[in-house]
Amino acid sequence: MRFGPDYPDTTYVPHAHPERTFDTGEVVLNYAVAGDESLPALLLVPGQFESWWGYEKAMPLLAEHFQVFAVDLRGQGRSTRTPGRYTLDNMGNDLVRFVAHGIGRPVICSGLSSGGVLSAWLSAYALPGQIRAAVYEDPPLFASETTPAIGQSIKQSIGGMFALWNKYLGDQWSIGDWDGMVAAAPHELPPHLVPLSKALLSGDGPPQNMKEYDPEWGRAFWTGTVAASCDHERMLSSVKCPVLMTHHFRMIDAQGRLLGALSDIQAEYARTLVEKAGNAVTYQSFPRMGHSMHGQDPELFAKTLVDWATALAAA
Amino acid sequence: MRFGPDYPDTTYVPHAHPERTFDTGEVVLNYAVAGDESLPALLLVPGQFESWWGYEKAMPLLAEHFQVFAVDLRGQGRSTRTPGRYTLDNMGNDLVRFVAHGIGRPVICSGLSSGGVLSAWLSAYALPGQIRAAVYEDPPLFASETTPAIGQSIKQSIGGMFALWNKYLGDQWSIGDWDGMVAAAPHELPPHLVPLSKALLSGDGPPQNMKEYDPEWGRAFWTGTVAASCDHERMLSSVKCPVLMTHHFRMIDAQGRLLGALSDIQAEYARTLVEKAGNAVTYQSFPRMGHSMHGQDPELFAKTLVDWATALAAA
Repeated sequence: MRFGPDYPDTTYVPHAHPERTFDTGEVVLNYAVAGDESLPALLLVPGQFESWWGYEKAMPLLAEHFQVFAVDLRGQGRSTRTPGRYTLDNMGNDLVRFVAHGIGRPVICSGLSSGGVLSAWLSAYALPGQIRAAVYEDPPLFASETTPAIGQSIKQSIGGMFALWNKYLGDQWSIGDWDGMVAAAPHELPPHLVPLSKALLSGDGPPQNMKEYDPEWGRAFWTGTVAASCDHERMLSSVKCPVLMTHHFRMIDAQGRLLGALSDIQAEYARTLVEKAGNAVTYQSFPRMGHSMHGQDPELFAKTLVDWATALAAA
Repeated sequence: MRFGPDYPDTTYVPHAHPERTFDTGEVVLNYAVAGDESLPALLLVPGQFESWWGYEKAMPLLAEHFQVFAVDLRGQGRSTRTPGRYTLDNMGNDLVRFVAHGIGRPVICSGLSSGGVLSAWLSAYALPGQIRAAVYEDPPLFASETTPAIGQSIKQSIGGMFALWNKYLGDQWSIGDWDGMVAAAPHELPPHLVPLSKALLSGDGPPQNMKEYDPEWGRAFWTGTVAASCDHERMLSSVKCPVLMTHHFRMIDAQGRLLGALSDIQAEYARTLVEKAGNAVTYQSFPRMGHSMHGQDPELFAKTLVDWATALAAA
């Protein structure tokens, strides 16, 4: 079982928005656009095991207010695979180049999950003036690090699942043992991840988003190479623009492990650091919302983002 | 004993060329310019424990043919210190931003030592069309990695010296025990590095270049974080422009350790990979030249670079 850019016929499906490409020099980024170019630019960054079309339902709603650019990051969707080079810094710099030379004007950026961490990265490390404001949608700040400054590490949250996926699917789907993975999940996964895994792997074979995902991403998070030279505490202390952080379902189990993207103390500490760096932070808690608000409730996501952006513009 | 941007009065000295700054968004890069803007642009990248003014003698010679930009990298000279963030990818992307938004046109890049590795990085990973051609001046390709694809690792070359410096001087000169370092060198260093260390540490206190150097650089190389997500073999296979590689003094000792920047088999393999990627490589061996040709023999360095660039332009 093999998927990815080398197997386009069995991997990809058509979408409502036309897809284009941007050459960063190292990778070819695939992206989709919606909305009129007279509107302010909005950059949408998917989460791990998501591609740009995770935003497909939200895009028409957002396109009433923005020209919307939704990207596949390196290792996602139709964008280039880059073995050994999946780091926040490299993914972030892909987006810096795309905003500067592909979009050509300042943007509001919004990312889900790891994409939310990249939204934080952009708000800290992009070119001066490039990022007008940033949305962190349920971002695993600290919780996706191996040695976080605060709270649960990736091993105490979702990491075991990434490790399992990478083991049976392999970097760039080089192993592709889907059935072996499904069979191993109940006894190889830490018990707190078994229900989530059952929900994600319940279908008949890999779901579309997993086909478009390079399982090496999972290894980069599990082993910590993705953020080895990008400490979240330091990154958040360098943020330079207003931030909207949404915080969805989370629960701490009896052993102190985290179910969800980040815990309350992690969200609170992230907020404190960004505020200390001199920026306004709007924190919104949605404790009954699943991980992807833009997927589960595109109307609420669009309304939340647009209301915040409108208030910012008026301030 | 403390040095660096927080102690400018005791750290820096005046230079012949005016210094300017460029804000990447994360760091403020210090650089100097020489030559007329009607000439082609040349970007000069210093080596480890060197600042832009290591090129001071070569710059007037090169400025007859180029508009020359010599930079301090992050952690060098007057540029920003970035604890935990010294990687080839981050340093390389600083230069991508500087070339795009500070210089504003394509360049030939030339770097010494680690700067030569960064010149290789730029020739592989910069924006399309940004790098016209690249000079690798005695670059420790493979030999500055912890797990190289070929030949001696950094532990089998100069790494022990970086470890010693970092131990006694500390990240950002936070320890600053120069005398302790000098006293420890003869018994803490691997024997093959003792003569080199004596030559480098012979003066009365830290030399000017060491004052301007963040010893965390040394730790990043010794521990491998600098290239953890930038395998040299993969990087060289991605090069996209003509290359001039100069190869200076090197010797293999009786235990197989490398004295010099890279061994003959490492240089040969680098050349093979760049050629296989479809690029012309000019290899020039200078077996009696010290590590920095631009410092030791600026005339020969300028002549070598200009002759090669002229031949390229004519081809």
